[in-house]
Amino acid sequence: MSELISSPANKLIKEVASLKQKKYRDNLGMFIAEGLRTVEECAASDWPVQLCIYTEAVATRERTRRVLDRLTAAQCRMVIVPEAIYNKLSDTEQPQGIMVVLKKRQTTITQLITSNNKESLIVVLDGIQDPGNAGTIIRTADAAGCTGVIILKGAVDIYAGKTVRATMGSLFHLPVIEGIPPEELIAGLKSANVNIFATSLQKSDIYYQVDFKRSTAIILGNEGQGVCQELIDKADACLTIPLVGQAESLNVAVAAGIILYEAVRQRATL
Amino acid sequence: MSELISSPANKLIKEVASLKQKKYRDNLGMFIAEGLRTVEECAASDWPVQLCIYTEAVATRERTRRVLDRLTAAQCRMVIVPEAIYNKLSDTEQPQGIMVVLKKRQTTITQLITSNNKESLIVVLDGIQDPGNAGTIIRTADAAGCTGVIILKGAVDIYAGKTVRATMGSLFHLPVIEGIPPEELIAGLKSANVNIFATSLQKSDIYYQVDFKRSTAIILGNEGQGVCQELIDKADACLTIPLVGQAESLNVAVAAGIILYEAVRQRATL
Repeated sequence: MSELISSPANKLIKEVASLKQKKYRDNLGMFIAEGLRTVEECAASDWPVQLCIYTEAVATRERTRRVLDRLTAAQCRMVIVPEAIYNKLSDTEQPQGIMVVLKKRQTTITQLITSNNKESLIVVLDGIQDPGNAGTIIRTADAAGCTGVIILKGAVDIYAGKTVRATMGSLFHLPVIEGIPPEELIAGLKSANVNIFATSLQKSDIYYQVDFKRSTAIILGNEGQGVCQELIDKADACLTIPLVGQAESLNVAVAAGIILYEAVRQRATL
Repeated sequence: MSELISSPANKLIKEVASLKQKKYRDNLGMFIAEGLRTVEECAASDWPVQLCIYTEAVATRERTRRVLDRLTAAQCRMVIVPEAIYNKLSDTEQPQGIMVVLKKRQTTITQLITSNNKESLIVVLDGIQDPGNAGTIIRTADAAGCTGVIILKGAVDIYAGKTVRATMGSLFHLPVIEGIPPEELIAGLKSANVNIFATSLQKSDIYYQVDFKRSTAIILGNEGQGVCQELIDKADACLTIPLVGQAESLNVAVAAGIILYEAVRQRATL
């Protein structure tokens, strides 16, 4: 059964509203995923949903009704709120009237690698700051069939609303680990015998001339500074994408797609 | 010599302000390019700059000074305005205090192809609506050494501020043609013997299994609907990027990068 909450002073509402801030997401270990498509992807995944908040207006739509029924059947707490309260909880410009509140999930690098029975393909984000880029990279990693995505300490918060939305549901399709320090990354990957490639503009191999058939991790760097020196020094090789024209660089999500799909191509044509 | 304009009612200022709207960009055949980096790229290109507007504050910076000197030497009209006026002309959240006003340039498909003395590689945007995606595709096409980009009628306005900024200067590096109807596109490409590939999710060849070594045009479709049926029917082949994981689609700029760089790879390893 759904319960109706109509007071903005309600404790639950205030707690959910606080999740727009990273501080509270970190403290509570929870985050918000918004919009019908994202909620559908989440409900179809094995990620347990704690709470669903929606407006009466959206519940009249057949497609929304289906996802609400699915969440109700999965013992999720269902809360109806007036549109004005929903809009306060939402951080989108055009609120869609449906969101879920989820517990963050964290796994270890070792679990990530051993959960996979084929050669790993892992994407590592070092210092990436733009939520749209980070979300698009997670979506692209999903499309390329990656084992998982590792976000190093200091990069964008993957549980921010904009990042979650930019993943287009892919956050619920593959393991994403956050807050890993560089030394832990290197130790974890080396002990599992994963080849480490850092992207770099200097002294590098052209990305299509390296072998992606073995277990591989690809480190993508910050939009301005690139991959940090410590990781470049510890990588097994550095990769570059040749710039044939006059552009000085590629968007980092585009670069991720180009390299990951070279791995897809090589592995498909074994 | 720079002139100082301090009245927001000045005719020139009002005309430049009107260029934030597509209607006036179309009527006047002019557009604005903003930000130091973009102005530098523009000044370094062969695109004639009509007018540069800047604030006194930015002119004190050494790097800005260099680009102002370069534009002055090129007979560009130089106008200093107070910050309040500059911010009204700007359509960015954090105005950088320097913009140029340019005449749009248009060329024909035939000129585009014949200007190039090697096999052409052309990107065609059909119905793409997001300025960030369109700009990033132009940047990626530049990086991949493309001959040019053709924007079909009904797609995003490439001269909107956000698109121009997202190209990161690449708008000034390669020819971009806009407003072409589909039948003109097909006639122009076929008469020049250019292979036409449309991206599609149905009945398609895997993109890395086709030959990009001949002159090629790649048609990318709208974010939601894909390439229109008329163009799919007239294309020589349809291409698809395999989705290995659970993602339902790729971002269109990422898809552009993956396909264009497969062409780069094939052409480099002739």
